[in-house]
Amino acid sequence: MLNYKKYKRFETVKLENRKWPNNEIKKSPIWCSVDLRDGNQALINPMTVDEKLEMFKLLVKLGFKEIEVGFPSASQIEYDFLRRLIDENHVPDDVVLQVLTQARPHLITKTFESLKGLKKAIVHIYNSTSVLQRDVVFNMSKEEIKKIAVEGTELVKEYSKNFDGEILLEYSPESFTGTEVEYALEICEAVADVWEASKDKKIIINLPSTVQMDTPNIFADQIEWMCRNFKDRERIIVSVHPHNDRGTGVADAELALLAGADRVEGTLFGNGERTGNVDILNIAYNMFSHGVNPNLNIENVNEIIDVCERCVKIPVHVRHPYAGKLVFTAFSGSHQDAINKGMDKYKERENNIWEVPYLPVDPSDLGREYEALVRINSQSGKGGVAFVMDHCFGFKLPKMMQKEFSDIIQKLSEEKGEIAPDEIMEQFTKEYLDIEKPFKLVSCIITDIDAEDSKENTKVDVLLIYKGDEFKLQGFGNGPIDSLKRALVSSKLIDTRIIDYKEHALSTGSEAKAAAYVYMERNDTHEKTFGVGVNSNITRASIKSIFSALNRLYSKK
Amino acid sequence: MLNYKKYKRFETVKLENRKWPNNEIKKSPIWCSVDLRDGNQALINPMTVDEKLEMFKLLVKLGFKEIEVGFPSASQIEYDFLRRLIDENHVPDDVVLQVLTQARPHLITKTFESLKGLKKAIVHIYNSTSVLQRDVVFNMSKEEIKKIAVEGTELVKEYSKNFDGEILLEYSPESFTGTEVEYALEICEAVADVWEASKDKKIIINLPSTVQMDTPNIFADQIEWMCRNFKDRERIIVSVHPHNDRGTGVADAELALLAGADRVEGTLFGNGERTGNVDILNIAYNMFSHGVNPNLNIENVNEIIDVCERCVKIPVHVRHPYAGKLVFTAFSGSHQDAINKGMDKYKERENNIWEVPYLPVDPSDLGREYEALVRINSQSGKGGVAFVMDHCFGFKLPKMMQKEFSDIIQKLSEEKGEIAPDEIMEQFTKEYLDIEKPFKLVSCIITDIDAEDSKENTKVDVLLIYKGDEFKLQGFGNGPIDSLKRALVSSKLIDTRIIDYKEHALSTGSEAKAAAYVYMERNDTHEKTFGVGVNSNITRASIKSIFSALNRLYSKK
Repeated sequence: MLNYKKYKRFETVKLENRKWPNNEIKKSPIWCSVDLRDGNQALINPMTVDEKLEMFKLLVKLGFKEIEVGFPSASQIEYDFLRRLIDENHVPDDVVLQVLTQARPHLITKTFESLKGLKKAIVHIYNSTSVLQRDVVFNMSKEEIKKIAVEGTELVKEYSKNFDGEILLEYSPESFTGTEVEYALEICEAVADVWEASKDKKIIINLPSTVQMDTPNIFADQIEWMCRNFKDRERIIVSVHPHNDRGTGVADAELALLAGADRVEGTLFGNGERTGNVDILNIAYNMFSHGVNPNLNIENVNEIIDVCERCVKIPVHVRHPYAGKLVFTAFSGSHQDAINKGMDKYKERENNIWEVPYLPVDPSDLGREYEALVRINSQSGKGGVAFVMDHCFGFKLPKMMQKEFSDIIQKLSEEKGEIAPDEIMEQFTKEYLDIEKPFKLVSCIITDIDAEDSKENTKVDVLLIYKGDEFKLQGFGNGPIDSLKRALVSSKLIDTRIIDYKEHALSTGSEAKAAAYVYMERNDTHEKTFGVGVNSNITRASIKSIFSALNRLYSKK
Repeated sequence: MLNYKKYKRFETVKLENRKWPNNEIKKSPIWCSVDLRDGNQALINPMTVDEKLEMFKLLVKLGFKEIEVGFPSASQIEYDFLRRLIDENHVPDDVVLQVLTQARPHLITKTFESLKGLKKAIVHIYNSTSVLQRDVVFNMSKEEIKKIAVEGTELVKEYSKNFDGEILLEYSPESFTGTEVEYALEICEAVADVWEASKDKKIIINLPSTVQMDTPNIFADQIEWMCRNFKDRERIIVSVHPHNDRGTGVADAELALLAGADRVEGTLFGNGERTGNVDILNIAYNMFSHGVNPNLNIENVNEIIDVCERCVKIPVHVRHPYAGKLVFTAFSGSHQDAINKGMDKYKERENNIWEVPYLPVDPSDLGREYEALVRINSQSGKGGVAFVMDHCFGFKLPKMMQKEFSDIIQKLSEEKGEIAPDEIMEQFTKEYLDIEKPFKLVSCIITDIDAEDSKENTKVDVLLIYKGDEFKLQGFGNGPIDSLKRALVSSKLIDTRIIDYKEHALSTGSEAKAAAYVYMERNDTHEKTFGVGVNSNITRASIKSIFSALNRLYSKK
């Protein structure tokens, strides 16, 4: 029996006249990566200094301008890493390092020591302010908790006077989501006052959902309430730091942006404690998909995955938005069909606005391949098989043929599971291209005749082997296909008609091959099938397609 | 350069006076599992019939009352599976099977054939209604698309007359999020009218975010708009079917519930096409954590993981909400400390309301272990080490000692990475319990003296080896510890004082052992350390603790 009565919801602000649901995300926030801190502290095996350096370089390359690098006063490794970044000049001029510290004198001393040589840095102090933590962890009154924050700010202010560079202050009322908003506001204002924050000397007030406690609209209400009630909104950079305990970290961040937040702290792929920090890439790609510039260089998701998996040692899930191996893959027949049609229309339209069913973004914009878009198993249909034949091998199967060939592939996949593109091509070759029984073409000479009768302007001399016997046939017609068919029909070896015919170049350039498709019916049994021929000579391609169709029609008996 | 200009947002309803942000989720919706359909169709290797059966049995056990089992008219495997469920009586009386089909005569015939023998079933028909799909996939007008839905409904109605059981209808305007709400409403009303839906013959109108296209508040606006505008809300069961392309599937479902949805279709752990369907377990555990009965039997998450990983063959991510291996684990020192204190207070309070920092739910309510709550690496601190020593081994280290011992463990973890509980205990034993140099206790006889002077009511005769030499010492004091210390001090071998002393039972029962902790200082160097002794005899435990402390103080030189 599920013990749900043991839980209750934390009651928070009731917002009147909320504005955020009418807003829209129109520009990117300030991003702050906490991969090297929150992210790192949540790993079974935290990153080595070399791994941290690789991660740091990635973050810089991606365009992060604010990067929290650790808690140098609490950990020797983080201290050493920070020194290495500074001493080896790994920090570009436009990137600001951020360090976390508790607001105690000896920790602040060490923190400032660790920052020596930087022209600018963010010192991030925090203390827990929630009803719960005040009670069970600190056993302190509201006034006492506020005093910690205020005295910490005074200390940072004191130390920053002697620091040879600019110090920005970030203050986090940790466990903000479990704190009465009025009290969170009171502390934040007190900190901002002590810091003497102003429009020209802004303070970062970071409001974390340290533990996610409610549906994302409630977080948005809390953020809007704070934004509305700061006595001087202009002096404050409102930052959010969502976690993901309820699986709604991205939603928290997005609705908080609607509610007025200016800045988001998070990690790549949502690494971080427990269920993780919010995934900055996810939010950024969401913006991107709405035509908003996320101001991050995220056009190669595979490289990001590569570095993260190496440093963090946690694989990106196959269904992770934008990054997972399966997220741009359609197995279902109707989806594959729609993608196939949508991609064709996208190319036709030429307006460069991406609109393709089941693909919110163009995978190639993220540096991903089309090849995996469509994967074929027993759930797939003609659209998928046609897509693979087109995108992987250049064969644009006629519509009716898509059904014929995908039925063959479906039967195979019901036996064998997923069928890779190469196996599909192998099957295509076996079924259409390499089929030489019962008719084997030995030679075929085509002669144009300058005849008055336009119906007989072509002569075909064909040599073929049928069931072991050689046949020499001749036919006249209005073109190679017609002449060949007449030669064959007159021999009484076959009795067929041609329903349709199509050909196209398989590739471009002088070396290009052509593919020819013929749709043929047996007059006796009314069986129908396609035949396919491939050759650099367009006429030979069509002749081969006829033999392909004939062999399919007459081998079945 | 990120190609964001290629994208634009789909403009949808502007809702006036929205109500949903004022609402709260107070009861569970109707759940419908689509694991065997959407979930299955998204797998590289779809489930075998045996795996499907195992999954079906799990879904029944979890308490799902509506289960979509497939698309029997499109796939022989799904047809056979459905027949097996019916013929082998796997369907409990209170569980309704749902089957998907397109609304074409031969598919409907086969669908009804597959349902034979069921007392009740949901027939789920759909067609795609979005602006995009109408254009690129179907090339049809609004009227033509609506006709597909209406004629499909007529067909189902026709066939259901001859079916020996009750047929409920579900209609999905597929790709609803990309459809103009007014048009979606028009189609849904037309379908409901043809079906002659009424308060007593409800129809399920399922509104899928087939592809997630916007922030979750927009989906909520769409749902509220639909709910408000149905001409007879009472005849409609409003169902949602969110996907997760933007990483906000759970948020979509939750905000849709606020907006009036009655029913949620989804899968376990969010399996499903691309980024997956919404994770029903995630929503259900979220409700649970607010004290709302989710009406699912989800008190053993490990069993659910086990079956899903076997059938679906995709591992649950280590940070997956509620289910991931790392989601109830704290590595960071301050978190561990807060959890440690919070757990103690929770036991003390005895009000049975769960409130523990960093743990939104009690892992044991989900059938998970406490042991993994706190894992120790270089990021950890005294709280974590104390937690492990207490919860795994029963040692309640004195506060000051937590720092002393965790410094030892931190040094070790900086070299070795994560330190398992057994390794922590091994280190504890080596540092405190098994330390016999330079002082080795050979024997110790304690005699109570009926003395008038209460300061000397105990005599201790102790035999020890110090640096290879045997010493016989005697001391008098107000108890064993005091007497022993005096004996040792008078021998001039040591010069120490006892700062503090504590002991507790390690377990309960007559076999119980006691642990004694002594905090001691050398008078010459002012070095301080703890010593620990364990014995079934409480007096011997304390004597051992003194030798432990002495050896730590005098071995350091």
